[in-house]
Amino acid sequence: MPNTNTTARLLITCPDKPGIVSAVSSFLYNHGANITDLDQHSTEPEGGTYFMRLEFQTPHLDLSRNVLAKAFEEAVASRYNMNWHISYAADLKKVAILVSKFDHAMLELLWRWSRCTLPCQITSVISNHPDLESDVASFGVPFHVVPVNKDNKAEAEARINELLQGNDLIVLARYMQILSPDLVARWPHKIINIHHSFLPAFVGANPYQQAHDKGVKLIGATAHYVTADLDQGPIIEQDVDRVSHRHDVDILRDLGQDVERNVLARAVKWHLEDRIIVHGNKTIVFN
Amino acid sequence: MPNTNTTARLLITCPDKPGIVSAVSSFLYNHGANITDLDQHSTEPEGGTYFMRLEFQTPHLDLSRNVLAKAFEEAVASRYNMNWHISYAADLKKVAILVSKFDHAMLELLWRWSRCTLPCQITSVISNHPDLESDVASFGVPFHVVPVNKDNKAEAEARINELLQGNDLIVLARYMQILSPDLVARWPHKIINIHHSFLPAFVGANPYQQAHDKGVKLIGATAHYVTADLDQGPIIEQDVDRVSHRHDVDILRDLGQDVERNVLARAVKWHLEDRIIVHGNKTIVFN
Amino acid sequence: MPNTNTTARLLITCPDKPGIVSAVSSFLYNHGANITDLDQHSTEPEGGTYFMRLEFQTPHLDLSRNVLAKAFEEAVASRYNMNWHISYAADLKKVAILVSKFDHAMLELLWRWSRCTLPCQITSVISNHPDLESDVASFGVPFHVVPVNKDNKAEAEARINELLQGNDLIVLARYMQILSPDLVARWPHKIINIHHSFLPAFVGANPYQQAHDKGVKLIGATAHYVTADLDQGPIIEQDVDRVSHRHDVDILRDLGQDVERNVLARAVKWHLEDRIIVHGNKTIVFN
Amino acid sequence: MPNTNTTARLLITCPDKPGIVSAVSSFLYNHGANITDLDQHSTEPEGGTYFMRLEFQTPHLDLSRNVLAKAFEEAVASRYNMNWHISYAADLKKVAILVSKFDHAMLELLWRWSRCTLPCQITSVISNHPDLESDVASFGVPFHVVPVNKDNKAEAEARINELLQGNDLIVLARYMQILSPDLVARWPHKIINIHHSFLPAFVGANPYQQAHDKGVKLIGATAHYVTADLDQGPIIEQDVDRVSHRHDVDILRDLGQDVERNVLARAVKWHLEDRIIVHGNKTIVFN
Repeated sequence: MPNTNTTARLLITCPDKPGIVSAVSSFLYNHGANITDLDQHSTEPEGGTYFMRLEFQTPHLDLSRNVLAKAFEEAVASRYNMNWHISYAADLKKVAILVSKFDHAMLELLWRWSRCTLPCQITSVISNHPDLESDVASFGVPFHVVPVNKDNKAEAEARINELLQGNDLIVLARYMQILSPDLVARWPHKIINIHHSFLPAFVGANPYQQAHDKGVKLIGATAHYVTADLDQGPIIEQDVDRVSHRHDVDILRDLGQDVERNVLARAVKWHLEDRIIVHGNKTIVFN
Repeated sequence: MPNTNTTARLLITCPDKPGIVSAVSSFLYNHGANITDLDQHSTEPEGGTYFMRLEFQTPHLDLSRNVLAKAFEEAVASRYNMNWHISYAADLKKVAILVSKFDHAMLELLWRWSRCTLPCQITSVISNHPDLESDVASFGVPFHVVPVNKDNKAEAEARINELLQGNDLIVLARYMQILSPDLVARWPHKIINIHHSFLPAFVGANPYQQAHDKGVKLIGATAHYVTADLDQGPIIEQDVDRVSHRHDVDILRDLGQDVERNVLARAVKWHLEDRIIVHGNKTIVFN
Repeated sequence: MPNTNTTARLLITCPDKPGIVSAVSSFLYNHGANITDLDQHSTEPEGGTYFMRLEFQTPHLDLSRNVLAKAFEEAVASRYNMNWHISYAADLKKVAILVSKFDHAMLELLWRWSRCTLPCQITSVISNHPDLESDVASFGVPFHVVPVNKDNKAEAEARINELLQGNDLIVLARYMQILSPDLVARWPHKIINIHHSFLPAFVGANPYQQAHDKGVKLIGATAHYVTADLDQGPIIEQDVDRVSHRHDVDILRDLGQDVERNVLARAVKWHLEDRIIVHGNKTIVFN
Repeated sequence: MPNTNTTARLLITCPDKPGIVSAVSSFLYNHGANITDLDQHSTEPEGGTYFMRLEFQTPHLDLSRNVLAKAFEEAVASRYNMNWHISYAADLKKVAILVSKFDHAMLELLWRWSRCTLPCQITSVISNHPDLESDVASFGVPFHVVPVNKDNKAEAEARINELLQGNDLIVLARYMQILSPDLVARWPHKIINIHHSFLPAFVGANPYQQAHDKGVKLIGATAHYVTADLDQGPIIEQDVDRVSHRHDVDILRDLGQDVERNVLARAVKWHLEDRIIVHGNKTIVFN
């Protein structure tokens, strides 16, 4: 693994045309960047949308971050109509986790973070229940309880919104409340949810019960960005596990939770490493 | 693998109560059967529905098939309200395959059959197109073309129905016509279809296009018994393969066809080995 | 899931001959047991070794445990030369975990145990390093440090042996010391180890380095019973994950640890549920 | 899928240093090539070996193939000490298949080739047994029988060598004879073998028997380039399937053959699409 303290990542979306790789890589090379990873994708052989992810090493850059950004915009991005973003691995993203009573997805994130395989700063865990307080405390992460009931929804969300300020990513690790379209709109492609089914199958409540009723032979989990449409946002990652007629709903839930936590952990890691570009209602995942 | 020429299989469905295993196994033992496999399942710890599959060896049976059946009904089945069926592996089931233009699912079945890993007699392949005639001919299986268009539906189906007579199982190996509820009703739990999606996601036409539009990260296939509700019959087997933003619809189709043929082959094999019991809209698969 | 407080399990190994199922199930039925699960296996169609696992419910048993055992031995087991064992789910097995510095396998077990999906009593964690003390403490489990170096091996093992007394199962959750043949011999088929490779590939030290040097495209993990032969005991469970040329040894280790913890957790669960029979150097796993 | 008739692929191996992407992509852009895919890999963050695969479209190239190659060597490759190769998708590689009696691996290749998902020209099938003659004939591919016994080895191999002339790739689709080091040396990284185990486990004869004896819980298959060391050449692809104590060696073989044919088909496809670079005894697979 390259020294992440000196790694920068450039994500680009633009209309596809010849010369982009050459222009981008030459610009970076001429300013002292060493490109250590490069991936690209086009929606069409010709005339489609072009996506690119570069990782480069910064030690020999001849420009400061701001000047580099300005120079890139002028010399390359404006010429190709690029939507682009540079991030620096040394700037750990700030992450807040929302959770209810199920601990598995949250613990998986906290555990991976504590052993340095999730490159971020987990700033807080917010829950509508007090149950997981001591679990969170043992990781040294602040825990906030914001009870939600039918009478205090607006108030509760205002409090949550306040607590979220300053974060770069919000992870719904089995948070059983629906966020308002307003709050969601304030965090475009910055809220990741784990849904406990293989979407688009079994949208909504009790997907394990739905799966059991249907008699499927595989159960799944889906990590996706949250949009105003419930369980309809861009899918980041999915996985499944095999089940049979022997498994009642409780066992489906147990097996499924193992799928959920792995799928969510992968999706969050890819977001933190700037591997995901959202295009329409789909994702490009450079992994 | 036991000598299948002497293998018999007993499938039982009945209300669950204590003593069933004892009654069934003692009956068989007392009549000279050697039980070589036994599997059971209850929907509830108590008071549910009970399912059982036994394999036994017949060489030392002291009764003929008919007399054994009658004795079992009187001594055991009637006492426990059993729905039951004995089949003999030596009686190969007769199978007809319906297909359109895609060859992959049909060829997989014919190939497995030709190397003796699908224990059945494939009596014929029926298609609404002539395209696959020589492929089928090379396996020595009769091929019938029954063109279907909007003007001859009833007539065509009457012809298909006639061709199907005498078979024990019908396999829709990517047959792109919808069978009438009438025909379906005549073959309860005896028509297996392969649907090219992970049901219940992407019911209906063009599931690979639907999957691509949705941006799922896994594509799947589902083998199920055909009922009057399109793509809603009891699921027998499912599987998936991983895909990414790099895969266009054509590649999804190519990858998916590998999943389809394996899923269908497994489902047909289990049916032929009497491993499947249908209960409501779900299957018990003893495998 | 049936009420495990009233579940008993009977494991049987004996020479295969007709009548075993009938004899066993009739005995249990006649004494008030309700058989809720039954699985069997023969190594040969005829004349092989026969294995059986039954789960039955105890509320209506007409005999005490001791009397039932004695009656079964006399009425059934002695007749068929059975090696057999009944265990009661209400008697939670006592488990000790040995660990070194890697936390992942141990934490997975503690976490599953704390949420009641590993039916046992974890009595203690023993380590040759103090590093994981606070992790273990947060689960309320006693933690013992027994340092091992080349001068104190015998002494250290004597201390470990003392600490292990009274347990039913020992789990080596990435314990990096080799137990003496003497200690191993005292716990036949009662020590489970997780080895971080797909055995028999990459026996011994640094399997991830070995895997990287070989350029394999899948890495694996293997849970097995410990015998005097290093990494050669009966395999209980294995799984793999896909890797590529992009993954250096550190990443292989990270990915592999996810496989290790799941494979170990499944193996331990199956042992605790009396699903495993060891036969020669192989396992029968009724799952 | 881009129009493969106009696709060219450039594979590069060289010492890693900054500027390579820029140099290569600028050269291609300046000569009218449109880069549609680009992948790279370095063995080390700094000072390692660098590998690159580019796909580009040729319609607007301003140089002929020969002149382009010469210009690339002079302007770029010589400067970076590159080992490089350009291939054109329109030039289908010529492939010969060697096979013995098992048909599954060979049929999978022929079937995929016949439906245009293996981009190559299959020139002939060579076997030491006549058994598969009619299977091969039905695909319109020449079939040559070259019997091999202990007295005619040299002679037989000379005949095989003669038949292989003019091919670009040789696929051993379960060819049960060992090729001489001499013949192997003449086709470096141009002979792909499918071995029916998860290498490095179960090298040599009867891997399914070895797997059964060992009691593994997964069986596998490995596609690799053939070198003088039996079953030790660079691994291209591997996969596994789950097995249990229920499966005897015959069933392992049946299940394993499904793994073999898929693993081999993927490896051959990747070779045909110039996705593989061999480095030491390992492969870089850009897929």
